[in-house]
Amino acid sequence: MKVADVSYRSVWRDGDSIGIVDQTRLPHEFVTRRLSTGEAVAHAITAMQVRGAPLIGAVAAYGLALALSKDSSDSGLAAAFELLIHARPTAVNLRWSLTRMLEHVQPLSPEMRIDAAWGEAERIADEDIELNQSIGRHGLELIRDLAGDKSTVNVLTHCNAGWLATVDYGTALAPIYFAHDEGIPVHVWVDETRPRNQGLLTAWELASHGVPHTLVTDNAGGHLMQHGKVDLVIVGADRVSAGGDVCNKIGTYLKALAAKANAVPFYAAVPSPTIDWTISDPLTEIPIEERSANEVLFVRGLNEDNRATRVAIATEGVTAENPAFDVTPAELVTGIITEAGVVAATREGLAPLSESASGR
Amino acid sequence: MKVADVSYRSVWRDGDSIGIVDQTRLPHEFVTRRLSTGEAVAHAITAMQVRGAPLIGAVAAYGLALALSKDSSDSGLAAAFELLIHARPTAVNLRWSLTRMLEHVQPLSPEMRIDAAWGEAERIADEDIELNQSIGRHGLELIRDLAGDKSTVNVLTHCNAGWLATVDYGTALAPIYFAHDEGIPVHVWVDETRPRNQGLLTAWELASHGVPHTLVTDNAGGHLMQHGKVDLVIVGADRVSAGGDVCNKIGTYLKALAAKANAVPFYAAVPSPTIDWTISDPLTEIPIEERSANEVLFVRGLNEDNRATRVAIATEGVTAENPAFDVTPAELVTGIITEAGVVAATREGLAPLSESASGR
Repeated sequence: MKVADVSYRSVWRDGDSIGIVDQTRLPHEFVTRRLSTGEAVAHAITAMQVRGAPLIGAVAAYGLALALSKDSSDSGLAAAFELLIHARPTAVNLRWSLTRMLEHVQPLSPEMRIDAAWGEAERIADEDIELNQSIGRHGLELIRDLAGDKSTVNVLTHCNAGWLATVDYGTALAPIYFAHDEGIPVHVWVDETRPRNQGLLTAWELASHGVPHTLVTDNAGGHLMQHGKVDLVIVGADRVSAGGDVCNKIGTYLKALAAKANAVPFYAAVPSPTIDWTISDPLTEIPIEERSANEVLFVRGLNEDNRATRVAIATEGVTAENPAFDVTPAELVTGIITEAGVVAATREGLAPLSESASGR
Repeated sequence: MKVADVSYRSVWRDGDSIGIVDQTRLPHEFVTRRLSTGEAVAHAITAMQVRGAPLIGAVAAYGLALALSKDSSDSGLAAAFELLIHARPTAVNLRWSLTRMLEHVQPLSPEMRIDAAWGEAERIADEDIELNQSIGRHGLELIRDLAGDKSTVNVLTHCNAGWLATVDYGTALAPIYFAHDEGIPVHVWVDETRPRNQGLLTAWELASHGVPHTLVTDNAGGHLMQHGKVDLVIVGADRVSAGGDVCNKIGTYLKALAAKANAVPFYAAVPSPTIDWTISDPLTEIPIEERSANEVLFVRGLNEDNRATRVAIATEGVTAENPAFDVTPAELVTGIITEAGVVAATREGLAPLSESASGR
């Protein structure tokens, strides 16, 4: 997508390094960074300079290529895999892409592995874009059907599942971009998404592309739905179980409950690498990342001098907990928007994707 | 309650003025203010220097006394009533206390009105304390019953319905204070309560009194309930309909949905002046205050130099909406904790309070 008329992916190869957009500096500053080692990539993932399940997967793949450039021995490969897979526990794409990389390069001789790794990472990134474009087209149909003779289709989204969360286009936002570009009048309710306020990334993306939107607190969505102000909820996901349960940013579950109670359709937009075919009981089996309490206790913004500043919102000594994800049970999910079409959030609905994934 | 070993009410008479705790400066600074005119009181209510339905009622009563001290004519009384009743639209206690004041002083001659108004305002404040103590005792029974052989009773609360939101003791927090003082091990999950972060007031109150608590984002409650980490939800209310629907701080509805879905008991703690006997369809009849978008777009805290600072979280030009309250339908409410006992959130359950209110 374009930033000030320059086209960007959210990760790209840059010679023997990779480039990323540092998302911890957005929305106030657009800063790109060069990463040259596996360690730097692991740090960028943990510190959420890059975030979003699909993007984490692609960046980790590049991270493995970078690490192999330094040490492509069996032990170097194993160490890089271990380092990167523990950078974030919840997004399944990380495991998926690293396993794919491992399977691709492990059979090769150490000297062959480096080029092969760069090539496979590039393919993972390119495929992510294709998957998202397909998600955009299928989701567009949903929005077009809903539009009918509405003057505006109001979509609520939580967190950021836009191009910044993927290599390009986004998952949850792809249908919105496609609808907007086709002239369907869409307006997006953007959940702030405390504690890290990824809603501000969504607002920044939508503003860059000219899509009408309104920022609201995470508390507001239920009220908006009660009053008929939301036609559709679309979120991304960090992991979807084989049965259609959606693990996504903390607070998604509350919006799904409100959507169900108010008969508002609730969709997750996910490419097949986000589906975890091994999970049967998501509430106990998906590791929910518990992040630093400081993410709750401090807020970042611009002070009166327009300088990026961190403020402490609580008094010293207040303790906080910060679970980063929650699980929305499949029965609250109207459907899953995938690259293969919109399917039911059930084992039967998702099963065909398992076949296409294993056949790829 | 005590602040650094000095007992405070959250509003008190101070000669020809009143004193308040400026809640916009908490939790970082404990600042009291003297207000000497009806206009100053109306401003303090609108700017949320004082907040919380019961406290707004008491402060407005004092505000009418202050205004009458300047002009106790019929037109002065009418003007002061109009000024104060529009300071905040959602809390019904404001209308209740001003109507009670009006009925008390209107029949009197202008020269009699001033002392009568001060007296009645003082009675409203004293009665609020008594009501809250009764709520505390009845809510204590609930917590004691739940405690059983639990090592800790985990209570989740939203916004601040503690002593700061009332004249003293609080509504939702009164049962928690009573339980803690009786030695029942309680731990409170404190919702941050964006956009104004009244959860920080709750954390400050609980810390002052030594009650164990943990701050969480508004997004976290559903996840905590899914994992059995919440035994009970208690919130306050700005208005409760005759049928038991609870209008409270934005986001309360989402917690009530999650409580219902996870079989967690959900209570509102309200004194009878918070019940609006005239409301039949709360979703359309209760005016929901729409506050400034700036409350969403800016966050206040301490910067690295420990100076209170406001930071802009969004980029310039982002628009936000800020509905301040929502309505939780009665079917999601396990019961209402009132001064007369814990009653069902139904017309039948609440009716006896109507009789006692009109007979008072």
